[in-house]
Amino acid sequence: MNEAYNNLITRRTVRSFEPGPVPEEKLEAVLKAGTYAPTARGRQSPLIVAVENADDIALMEELNIRIKGADKKTFYGAPAVIVVFADPNARNGEYDAALVAGNILNAAHAVGLGACWVSMAKEAFETEEGKALKKKWGIASSWVGVAHCLIGVPAGPLPEADPRKPDYIVRIK
Amino acid sequence: MNEAYNNLITRRTVRSFEPGPVPEEKLEAVLKAGTYAPTARGRQSPLIVAVENADDIALMEELNIRIKGADKKTFYGAPAVIVVFADPNARNGEYDAALVAGNILNAAHAVGLGACWVSMAKEAFETEEGKALKKKWGIASSWVGVAHCLIGVPAGPLPEADPRKPDYIVRIK
Repeated sequence: MNEAYNNLITRRTVRSFEPGPVPEEKLEAVLKAGTYAPTARGRQSPLIVAVENADDIALMEELNIRIKGADKKTFYGAPAVIVVFADPNARNGEYDAALVAGNILNAAHAVGLGACWVSMAKEAFETEEGKALKKKWGIASSWVGVAHCLIGVPAGPLPEADPRKPDYIVRIK
Repeated sequence: MNEAYNNLITRRTVRSFEPGPVPEEKLEAVLKAGTYAPTARGRQSPLIVAVENADDIALMEELNIRIKGADKKTFYGAPAVIVVFADPNARNGEYDAALVAGNILNAAHAVGLGACWVSMAKEAFETEEGKALKKKWGIASSWVGVAHCLIGVPAGPLPEADPRKPDYIVRIK
């Protein structure tokens, strides 16, 4: 199979990042790929917020740890976090946002970056601190958090894929 | 940018298909790419059902038209429909299923097929006819429909992309 296909098979979740900023050209490319994800009726309903501000990233991680009741870091030192929001008034808005995040993860791999979808963005951006972040960023309070996509240069080799479950696919002829 | 990246930018929704079956090797590749989508905690929670049975496809289309109140066909003569289901007991199960569908759409483009996410799968598989299809296919009634992915060989050139909305991306430094 070709490079475009193999990229989808070889992408892995990355949880270890090199310090320092994400190369700007690569980050821009990843963001652009997010905007080309399919959306219901082509309405482009989501919103993409790319955060490189260390204080804002630290606050998002703090909220995530609190919501999860985690006993360790959950953002793994990522130098950038791309938050994908859903429009609460769009039909299929959360699926649209998930597809945008999916394209971001695949595009990161295509350009040699690593990425990780960290969950509980909805809960985070419903807290008072999360709402304050939306206000600081100049976006409407109504946007619904769907994914925090951690982005950075992978530190070390990509992990091996687990085997796929045996009953993932059913064929009906 | 490279071929892997460009595939994400050049994918388009396809709504016109050549008659005849989907080449088996390509369909298998697309299904495999679905299983490599990221899922929460790597749990591979979704289920993928690839339907090539014309009667089953016709029934799914009939349900879709009824649910949408559509006045025309909504499956566009697609020779195969890949239904992606979410596990109702999986945390983030619907996002997992959306990412599987997203990989299927991107993989179809990578191997020269065309694809289209048709919505309202949840509603369809909650109807009595939809439940009967799940029973016929030998899958549990509890699976939640997320996407019907129409798959086929595109008839004609891919459509042009609409311009991206100007306020899709916010940068926070």
